[in-house]
Amino acid sequence: MPMRYYEDFDVGEEWTFDPWSLDEATLVDFARQYDPQPMHLDPAAAADGPHGGLIASGWQTALGCVTPFLRAVMTETAGLASPGFEEFRWLKPVWPGEPITPKTKVLDKRVSKSKPDLGIVRFEFSGTNSDGDIVWRAEGLFFISIRP
Amino acid sequence: MPMRYYEDFDVGEEWTFDPWSLDEATLVDFARQYDPQPMHLDPAAAADGPHGGLIASGWQTALGCVTPFLRAVMTETAGLASPGFEEFRWLKPVWPGEPITPKTKVLDKRVSKSKPDLGIVRFEFSGTNSDGDIVWRAEGLFFISIRP
Repeated sequence: MPMRYYEDFDVGEEWTFDPWSLDEATLVDFARQYDPQPMHLDPAAAADGPHGGLIASGWQTALGCVTPFLRAVMTETAGLASPGFEEFRWLKPVWPGEPITPKTKVLDKRVSKSKPDLGIVRFEFSGTNSDGDIVWRAEGLFFISIRP
Repeated sequence: MPMRYYEDFDVGEEWTFDPWSLDEATLVDFARQYDPQPMHLDPAAAADGPHGGLIASGWQTALGCVTPFLRAVMTETAGLASPGFEEFRWLKPVWPGEPITPKTKVLDKRVSKSKPDLGIVRFEFSGTNSDGDIVWRAEGLFFISIRP
């Protein structure tokens, strides 16, 4: 298996993934398990609510935008862990059936000062709807090994 | 249904929820769907990996620490949306079977300047393991209606 190391990530490199959308059953199923607010779970309550209809849990949106990158790139990368996010913004609601296009981009990278065999790469994650609006945007860090 | 509004959240108020843990099957099932990095998915690869064994996807940890609050409090709150997080840190790995205690606390609150019928409440979310170490900590915002 070819393995990606810190050196293999270039600042500005980006990946655009196939758009996904959530049918109402998938949206409600996620909500029932993880985020049972009425706007994500109950079509009748959601119709009377602030958005006028069901919208996806922001967590389901974020996962939908990150999972393609984790699957395509991080499964073949010498990644150690993610310390977390520096930005994490839900910007627009996501509606059932709406196509969302995930994108990931390398924003910057540096070698750890305290651990010289470790690199820190900052990625921008986003999802864009068919109007061109970004629905979720985050900047997440990954610790990635230097090539041995 | 009694409804919570902006006025009903007090700075310093906190909720501690029952500890949860993930058996290996639940951990691997989540990884397969959302975060298929070998350290979360493949016991043999994980044993040879940086953590010496399977660890939970950080997303599964974060959801495990947020869902109890969403279920217990936000389902009965006039919440409009969350704009996102200002801090989001994975601090320790979570192992199969390890009990994690979720806690949510009101850090601060203010009324929106541009929309005076809208409040903004900042919550601290965290999960703590049985050694007392915080495994995940985040500061998340919610837009919550002022009482009509």
